[in-house]
Amino acid sequence: MALIVQKYGGTSVGDIDSIRNVANRVIKEYQSGNDLVVVLSAMAGATDQLINLAHQVTDIPDERELDALLATGEQTTVSLLAMMLNSIGFPAVSFLGFQAQILTNDAHGRARIQEINVDRIRRALEQKKIVTVAGFQGWTRGGDITTLGRGGSDTSAVALAAALKADSCEIYTDVDGVYTTDPNICGKARKLKKISYDEMLEMASLGAKVLQIRSVEFAKKYNVPVHVRSSFSEEEGTMVVREEKDMEKVLVSGIAYDKNQARITLTKVPDQPGIAAKIFTPMGEAGIEVDMIIQNTRAGGLTDLTFTVATSDYKRAMEIQKNLAREIGTENVYGDENIAKVSIIGVGMRSHAGIAAKMFSSLANENINISMISTSEIKVSCVIEEKYTELAIRVLHDVFELDKAD
Amino acid sequence: MALIVQKYGGTSVGDIDSIRNVANRVIKEYQSGNDLVVVLSAMAGATDQLINLAHQVTDIPDERELDALLATGEQTTVSLLAMMLNSIGFPAVSFLGFQAQILTNDAHGRARIQEINVDRIRRALEQKKIVTVAGFQGWTRGGDITTLGRGGSDTSAVALAAALKADSCEIYTDVDGVYTTDPNICGKARKLKKISYDEMLEMASLGAKVLQIRSVEFAKKYNVPVHVRSSFSEEEGTMVVREEKDMEKVLVSGIAYDKNQARITLTKVPDQPGIAAKIFTPMGEAGIEVDMIIQNTRAGGLTDLTFTVATSDYKRAMEIQKNLAREIGTENVYGDENIAKVSIIGVGMRSHAGIAAKMFSSLANENINISMISTSEIKVSCVIEEKYTELAIRVLHDVFELDKAD
Repeated sequence: MALIVQKYGGTSVGDIDSIRNVANRVIKEYQSGNDLVVVLSAMAGATDQLINLAHQVTDIPDERELDALLATGEQTTVSLLAMMLNSIGFPAVSFLGFQAQILTNDAHGRARIQEINVDRIRRALEQKKIVTVAGFQGWTRGGDITTLGRGGSDTSAVALAAALKADSCEIYTDVDGVYTTDPNICGKARKLKKISYDEMLEMASLGAKVLQIRSVEFAKKYNVPVHVRSSFSEEEGTMVVREEKDMEKVLVSGIAYDKNQARITLTKVPDQPGIAAKIFTPMGEAGIEVDMIIQNTRAGGLTDLTFTVATSDYKRAMEIQKNLAREIGTENVYGDENIAKVSIIGVGMRSHAGIAAKMFSSLANENINISMISTSEIKVSCVIEEKYTELAIRVLHDVFELDKAD
Repeated sequence: MALIVQKYGGTSVGDIDSIRNVANRVIKEYQSGNDLVVVLSAMAGATDQLINLAHQVTDIPDERELDALLATGEQTTVSLLAMMLNSIGFPAVSFLGFQAQILTNDAHGRARIQEINVDRIRRALEQKKIVTVAGFQGWTRGGDITTLGRGGSDTSAVALAAALKADSCEIYTDVDGVYTTDPNICGKARKLKKISYDEMLEMASLGAKVLQIRSVEFAKKYNVPVHVRSSFSEEEGTMVVREEKDMEKVLVSGIAYDKNQARITLTKVPDQPGIAAKIFTPMGEAGIEVDMIIQNTRAGGLTDLTFTVATSDYKRAMEIQKNLAREIGTENVYGDENIAKVSIIGVGMRSHAGIAAKMFSSLANENINISMISTSEIKVSCVIEEKYTELAIRVLHDVFELDKAD
């Protein structure tokens, strides 16, 4: 007998038939004698509808009230699932964030889980009830409803699995696992059986939208094995787990890409102490996240500075830098929206040299110019012209033999 | 400076424009320096939609889960109103049943309020916040969400007004007050300035659908003056208040009617001890409420029994009585669906004789036959043929001079 936490996303509970499909999966596990805690998202589209409703009221909704409004989405699905299970003879009970005692800080709209008191859930499980829990929401010590941000239900599930010391945490989604790269781009993309938390974090933050980043951080922190799989098939998905020795044998585990990037270059910036702070502080103040930064020193106390931002921040970032240029004495501010970031990821890089070089030469062989590079212990990212993205991915997938089984 | 509890029904918060109208009314009171607690229903139709959703899952939804689902309706409106108020510069905060600490028993779907801890509401009012509270819902000591039944938001408002010792409780609805009778039937119907709790209870239970009966019981118990008025006009509505001396001067305050009635007659029932129990116990067990009962003793140890039930229970009641007839020895079971109950109501009846007789003779003058009569301290009800309902109402309205100002 095991304690299993399952999480179903919005498309898995998109209508009554889908919820029936979820109920059947849940019952199957329950009938095998397992204890079940089922975390649900809102019906696909429901959260957006609620946000639209709020925006009919005001452009900038009060965050506390928006959270109270959005929380109705998951309240709907968890009560419907519990209702359905009860109606066919399986005892079930739904808990909202406050009933499941998911305590968060009070950062409305992006709250962080601080503590979960699982006493009430445990009592229900002891009574052999199936427990459905509203994902995405929590509450504060002050008794206010909070939400955890987009994809927050993943984090709810992993946090509950950690707090309950569950035997497994299964994230059901509309894809059947984590792939070596985007199968829509590379026909040879292969579903990974296993991936380490760190690799998953890089995959997630680099644009592979399978799990919310914070849920992976949570899983890593509390060592919760997460099984990402499809709610529409019986196939095994991908296990996201603690790094294992044999993972290092593989050089590269996956290739991520991000086309939502723009580059800004400042030329002939006077290279004085504090100049970087002068350039980047206004960006932070405007809420613009800067991703990669490179600096090339020129002769004569001058330097060129290039950095990337999200496409959606591009126009504001250009404006800020053009205004700053006069003050600082920058010669010119150039921008380019037609770029993409392609990254290879793998814990094997820690113990193998020459992987970055192999990436660079493979791209060079295809006449793909690399304009920026950034590296970490387990990834190498290159900025290239956007139009070469697909080609780059396919070339790298071949070179690092990602189509071969792990 | 006063503390005012306002309640707005479903049509008053039916869409964003209506909610804006509510916000404007609330702001007006707030700007006069008053403290405001605003209780809202779900958007018109929302509760029915949620019930439909539940019925897509199962014919008999688990009551606890249905309550959790239905509670989203009011959660939506209170957060939207608070959002709107905040967006135009008036500090507001929404509270759900559990946040407003509206404690109920655990009779899901028809829960009764047991206690309200108003500390949190008071703290918000002290901070000069407008408090919006989800009507219709509460929670149990065990931490489950409950709902109070149809029209429960009226009760939420009155109970909050009682707990907060509010200076007034205003119920905004789609009618502009309580009328002497249905204005659609009697053109001379007049809006009452005042009505006593007891009269209102009779009006409500006899078919005038303005306030939920339980809210009036609550108002009476805690002596909360309730102002029933329209959310679409500035006019004064009707005050529902404790009985006052001068109310007795008026003989009849209002005329109610109920066409949703059917009559069943059992002839030549053997008149033995326990026979009434034998006849009515199976009705109670089937959940059928019997309203009026009359018994005419015949010679020879036989009796005729006539009673009324709601039209919706008529067929089942007939079946039960026909089955019982053989067992008991009843000669015949007759039924009639084409009846109506017309009632005159007024606390003045307590101190004036001859009012019932005047009602009977007025109906007789119009050749309206009375088939059943029931009386209480402050009302007289007659069952008549349904087709005479409108005529009876108009005649009685004239005879008792209800068109004259109180």
